[in-house]
Amino acid sequence: MSSERKINFSAGPSVLPLSVLRQAADEMVNFRGTGMSVMEISHRSKAYISIFEETVADLKRLMKVPDSHEILFTHGGATLQFSAIPMNLIGKTGKADYAVTGSFSGLAMKEAKKYGDINVACSSEDRNHTYIPAQEDIKVSSDASYFHYCANNTIFGTEWKYIPETGGVPLVCDMSSNIMSFPIDVSKFGVIYAGVQKNMAPAGMAVVIIDKTLLGGELPLTPKLLSYKVTADADSMHNTPPCYVIYMLGLMMKWMDEQGGLEGMQKIKSEKAKVLYDTIDESELFVGPAEKASRSDMNVTFRTSDEELDAKFIKAATAAGFENLKGHRLVGGMRASIYNAMPFEGVEKLAAFMREFEKNR
Amino acid sequence: MSSERKINFSAGPSVLPLSVLRQAADEMVNFRGTGMSVMEISHRSKAYISIFEETVADLKRLMKVPDSHEILFTHGGATLQFSAIPMNLIGKTGKADYAVTGSFSGLAMKEAKKYGDINVACSSEDRNHTYIPAQEDIKVSSDASYFHYCANNTIFGTEWKYIPETGGVPLVCDMSSNIMSFPIDVSKFGVIYAGVQKNMAPAGMAVVIIDKTLLGGELPLTPKLLSYKVTADADSMHNTPPCYVIYMLGLMMKWMDEQGGLEGMQKIKSEKAKVLYDTIDESELFVGPAEKASRSDMNVTFRTSDEELDAKFIKAATAAGFENLKGHRLVGGMRASIYNAMPFEGVEKLAAFMREFEKNR
Repeated sequence: MSSERKINFSAGPSVLPLSVLRQAADEMVNFRGTGMSVMEISHRSKAYISIFEETVADLKRLMKVPDSHEILFTHGGATLQFSAIPMNLIGKTGKADYAVTGSFSGLAMKEAKKYGDINVACSSEDRNHTYIPAQEDIKVSSDASYFHYCANNTIFGTEWKYIPETGGVPLVCDMSSNIMSFPIDVSKFGVIYAGVQKNMAPAGMAVVIIDKTLLGGELPLTPKLLSYKVTADADSMHNTPPCYVIYMLGLMMKWMDEQGGLEGMQKIKSEKAKVLYDTIDESELFVGPAEKASRSDMNVTFRTSDEELDAKFIKAATAAGFENLKGHRLVGGMRASIYNAMPFEGVEKLAAFMREFEKNR
Repeated sequence: MSSERKINFSAGPSVLPLSVLRQAADEMVNFRGTGMSVMEISHRSKAYISIFEETVADLKRLMKVPDSHEILFTHGGATLQFSAIPMNLIGKTGKADYAVTGSFSGLAMKEAKKYGDINVACSSEDRNHTYIPAQEDIKVSSDASYFHYCANNTIFGTEWKYIPETGGVPLVCDMSSNIMSFPIDVSKFGVIYAGVQKNMAPAGMAVVIIDKTLLGGELPLTPKLLSYKVTADADSMHNTPPCYVIYMLGLMMKWMDEQGGLEGMQKIKSEKAKVLYDTIDESELFVGPAEKASRSDMNVTFRTSDEELDAKFIKAATAAGFENLKGHRLVGGMRASIYNAMPFEGVEKLAAFMREFEKNR
């Protein structure tokens, strides 16, 4: 079965470890002797509560989430959090700062404007989001309720290499596309949130990690399920959660443990990214549009000098078993998304294919 | 494997057909020759769009949804729709009518009060929600933006046997626990919505079927993902949808076709409910708290005259392979949820067990 599997560079939903998928298949009809599928058991049952609590505990341990912070499982992916973040947090001063370094941070800012006064603290739009602004280029408002940024820009292939200094303004970070790919000091953040469908699990949920002192300030019209306070008070079970996604997230936590935790994930992701960026830098055909200092370890964007040649490359790669290498429609070219579950061998094979393509063109 | 399976009367998430679970397991690692799991493919890919479109088309055909109505797949289950319904619809007049016939309709009403003036059009609270009010007991406000009711009350085991007449006020119905169990005239409704985790699929999504003329009136502070207009304009793909739940919903649509569509589901559910209610009515031990004319075909509530005996029954039933028969904590006693995927044999076995228990007590 494994030999028929493609090498899948999808930007999300994205590749999952084969061992995790096999376990899910094995347990589908009868979950660990319960005589039921995980999909069929009540979220209030002992069997499910045990999955849920273990998943939260594993996530807390792997990310070293301090007791000052609460882990929430929320519906709707990161996009629903674009609304929930201002609805929960902007009430403090009515103002917030946004760093705009790509498409999703722009969408988050646009949504936040419904709920308060938004200051663009920095933007990389001047050079088509090919870089991450430096600390000295960020204009933080001291009266902002929070400062929002997106840690990794999936479409443009850039990644923040530092945590911005905001002088006491709570940091809110959309980590959808690089969460759990390296250890991070969670205590520095007011809120970390992430749609799970890239580095953590299949699509259908977001994880929110929030400093407990930020709970309880939601705007009056906040939908009940979007209130972080309500969600925290109900241990993320105010209503039926996306049970199966949480189960899959639990399997992924065990798998990450086997890889050496987030230190292990960091080592692997750095090696994977190096293989592809070295291939690009040594090539006379391929170039990477992102500036070197801002290159993402998660989404490697590259192109030739010619759109037709790009199309030819993508076609040949697909025929050779490499899936989803086409770049986002906003930027064109190619993109290899190499999230946590992409095996090192997949990246090595792509690099070899790129060299071969260049030689034979 | 099948012989180890329990008979699962969970109120939701609930039993799924064994054939559907087996197909999901078989396709988990390599979905129909794509070399990837459904969980791993982009929601923008051809393979996924084909699943998505087929599922919508099957749902439309099975429910005979007229072209005047749009089918939306939304995040967060029915509870998020408790907020979305008023946010999208109450702007017209600032007022809405709610029928309160159980726990969830009460929660829906409470949430709606954030967004406008709510009139309780009828309530069954006077007799602990053991009945559904008659048409003549409903006080519809002619200036209501909509009239909301919950078609089946999972906790109390009651079900509306008629569609309320509202004199032109758009009908909004939470059908979470009886959708697709019988054919219904969709054209009579402004909005039908349902969390999918009872009759349709695993947990993690709601289906919304909305009269297109009701789109576009959302309150200014409506989160983008909660706007039905935004969702409709983006064909439910404004952001990454809960892809795997939709895939499972698709498998369920094929399974319902095999059962003879909604006419087939209606025949089976009536037979299943009759077996259990006949057993209760013929018993000298068990009674059903719901009034006969309002009995639910989906959730059969029953009890003995004695809490200790209830507990003894549940314990003995569990030991015999019947799962999740304990009633909701609000009402106690027992509850057998017999949604679409509960096989007729499961109900027959429970009835036989009840008779045996009564004989031997």
